[in-house]
Amino acid sequence: MSKDTTSTTSSPAATGATRRLGRFIGELRFEQLPQPVVAEAVRASINLLGCSINGALHESVGMVLAGLGPFGGPPQATVPGLARRADCLLTALASGIASHVGDFDDTHPDILVHPSGPVISALLPLAEMRGASGADFITAFVAGVEVECRVARAVHPAHYNAGWHITGTAGIFGAAAACARLLGLDETRSAWALGIAATQSAGIREMFGSMCKSLHVGRAAQGGLTAALLAQQGFTSADAAIEGKRGFIHVLSSVAHPEALTAGLNTEWELLRNTYKLYACGLVIHPALDGCIQLRKQHNLTSADIAHIELQVHPLALELTGKPSPRSGLEGKFSIFHAAAVGIIDGAGGEQQFSDARVRSADAITLRGKVTARVEPGVGMEQAVVTIYTTGGQRHEVRIEHCAGSLERPLSDAELDAKFLGLAEPAIGARAAAALAALRGLPVAGNCADVAALCGAVA
Amino acid sequence: MSKDTTSTTSSPAATGATRRLGRFIGELRFEQLPQPVVAEAVRASINLLGCSINGALHESVGMVLAGLGPFGGPPQATVPGLARRADCLLTALASGIASHVGDFDDTHPDILVHPSGPVISALLPLAEMRGASGADFITAFVAGVEVECRVARAVHPAHYNAGWHITGTAGIFGAAAACARLLGLDETRSAWALGIAATQSAGIREMFGSMCKSLHVGRAAQGGLTAALLAQQGFTSADAAIEGKRGFIHVLSSVAHPEALTAGLNTEWELLRNTYKLYACGLVIHPALDGCIQLRKQHNLTSADIAHIELQVHPLALELTGKPSPRSGLEGKFSIFHAAAVGIIDGAGGEQQFSDARVRSADAITLRGKVTARVEPGVGMEQAVVTIYTTGGQRHEVRIEHCAGSLERPLSDAELDAKFLGLAEPAIGARAAAALAALRGLPVAGNCADVAALCGAVA
Repeated sequence: MSKDTTSTTSSPAATGATRRLGRFIGELRFEQLPQPVVAEAVRASINLLGCSINGALHESVGMVLAGLGPFGGPPQATVPGLARRADCLLTALASGIASHVGDFDDTHPDILVHPSGPVISALLPLAEMRGASGADFITAFVAGVEVECRVARAVHPAHYNAGWHITGTAGIFGAAAACARLLGLDETRSAWALGIAATQSAGIREMFGSMCKSLHVGRAAQGGLTAALLAQQGFTSADAAIEGKRGFIHVLSSVAHPEALTAGLNTEWELLRNTYKLYACGLVIHPALDGCIQLRKQHNLTSADIAHIELQVHPLALELTGKPSPRSGLEGKFSIFHAAAVGIIDGAGGEQQFSDARVRSADAITLRGKVTARVEPGVGMEQAVVTIYTTGGQRHEVRIEHCAGSLERPLSDAELDAKFLGLAEPAIGARAAAALAALRGLPVAGNCADVAALCGAVA
Repeated sequence: MSKDTTSTTSSPAATGATRRLGRFIGELRFEQLPQPVVAEAVRASINLLGCSINGALHESVGMVLAGLGPFGGPPQATVPGLARRADCLLTALASGIASHVGDFDDTHPDILVHPSGPVISALLPLAEMRGASGADFITAFVAGVEVECRVARAVHPAHYNAGWHITGTAGIFGAAAACARLLGLDETRSAWALGIAATQSAGIREMFGSMCKSLHVGRAAQGGLTAALLAQQGFTSADAAIEGKRGFIHVLSSVAHPEALTAGLNTEWELLRNTYKLYACGLVIHPALDGCIQLRKQHNLTSADIAHIELQVHPLALELTGKPSPRSGLEGKFSIFHAAAVGIIDGAGGEQQFSDARVRSADAITLRGKVTARVEPGVGMEQAVVTIYTTGGQRHEVRIEHCAGSLERPLSDAELDAKFLGLAEPAIGARAAAALAALRGLPVAGNCADVAALCGAVA
């Protein structure tokens, strides 16, 4: 690293990764985006806003608005899911939390990032306030996701394994990039926005199971928007904020892959590797839950039939979701034992199966006591082997290679629409259908304020 | 670590460090504070607010208020140094940046933390809005500094060496602790506030030399206040946020000292090891600058006499301040070569010696070209050996064991007062003397709003 990497002024000779990402943000145009990328941006927006709208009903979002509202600014933007407007920064925080609190948002399976939450939670309020077009929204969203996922690739997996919640730490780059694009920042200021994001990047995995897990997404959104707003004013950052010796990838990961930061920019699109959950719980649980639902259907099983359920899983499934006795819906989303139980009892894995009431119900408690799980070498993160021993002495087994909602078995548009309506209707009622239509029409929408307003509840 | 460490509800059996720090915050009372601790709280407040008042004139603070002001809330608090009120969160951010931008704030030499900036920048606006007494302010301030420095001890030095800016990363704990105490949060909620702080903790050393370095202090203040406000609402965090397997000290440091988190609580006071700078630049430069000023005085040297200045220093002095050709005042504060030069030319190291103009002046540029620095084993961080070879063939040498402003050569109250007035007068003029008197009277002040108002400029 030369001394100039900590320079406070930009240099035309600077060609590091932070600067190249800044250029990508500054130059990206809607006309460049391949049609499948635009289509996936729409799908991601529908999935994410369904989560945000539903998640706004969670008590943690109410706490944020009650606790920080008295310090907030003018009502500039709609908080999705609520009959409430707030300033853009508070909206970004609250809706970022809402987007992730149900653990039902999207996932980039290669890097364990939930890409859309930090990006859209920052971008939509800004687009609403500025009256940006749908095309501008989509361009900014794509800029955000592409930058976010590349930053994640540059630190994964050592970063995650060390205890970082990568959706928070990489997410702030996505939010900053998207907002920088929407604000029309040039290469230099976009790079500063990334640097200001880099040095706010935070979120540790000890928080999993507490309200702070989704706070990471909210703070990533709010911090990324803050970064872009400061960079717009000329607030400087380090030239090599991401790749420098004391930069993000080296300080926050024991093994870094700097080449991943800029690989395939403008030619390969991370957004096309995004996936949407069919089940409302931690992703590493999905294959086992899928297997339980399949065996239930094939053999008409009820909980009375079950003597023992044996799960063979990837190590991360046990590390993240090995909680045998969850006490709340939030904890239930990270209990592979609870998920297997409701898979058999209900044949489903939606929000209802991970409510406080369902997690505390007697039948779920009884059945999850009959579930064991162990790590099996050769079982990948998207895989599981489910073996059910019945009280009648039978043994049923299924090996899941790719669960529903994976890249190989993606949700159809119709499934996504149904997921959106199922999430949105409890919060915004009949307006959900209009909101869905508006989101489907994003590429030709004249003003994002109309779309955002439909995501709020009727006052 | 048992699974219960990520519980979302508090357990009476929980006796980990996060919980014990929460208890310390919840139970600390003004009557318990030894008189020297109260006195040092006053000295620290005078020193810090002098820095904040002066630093508010820096362009980066203006950018923050211009960029984020449109999103801000009601005018709840005074921004020190300015004729401007803002909501408490924006005030915390702006004044946190202001407190550190001159690199003239206090230093805990054992852990390289600048303790007061994050704490006071969050605490004073909150105390102003709530009309808290001076005794409540001091109690909360002490709670903040004690927690902040213990968190820093638990990760130092591996954390700093890895590239973290410890004033940002530990500072947010101090801000959260102080605000939790002022809000009167109980043990559980104070512990949650620390957890919410832990998972926002950020700031990397790549930023040194850019505006983002002091942004760390502002974000620590704003994030810590946010943490306390959320915890007040019941927003939960992990029980073992700091000491857990995936908690702060393990994720952000390769070597952790968990026992340091709670050592000596209520009996030993970190605040008594705080120091105040006589020179307006990076601390590791001070011994060399001190030596240059001493030799100048002893031998009546002028720049024309200098053939060569040789500095023997601690490794960190070169790592942090080895910039041979600074281009701005900010960079000059981190150039040991510039500091040595102005030490000879001006016989001083105040804000004027580290202005943009001084750094770009021909005589400073010429003389710093004659300065060399090398690491010498056995020279500690507070030490330096300065050798000057004159054009007349003489050789003068001094070894600095403890520089002015160190624990061993602390600033007197009179020196602190002079420092405050020198910093405050350019920003708030004649009001500086009244502000100083109000700060000296903090222990008996009835309402912090009066003190805070005096720190602002006349509209």
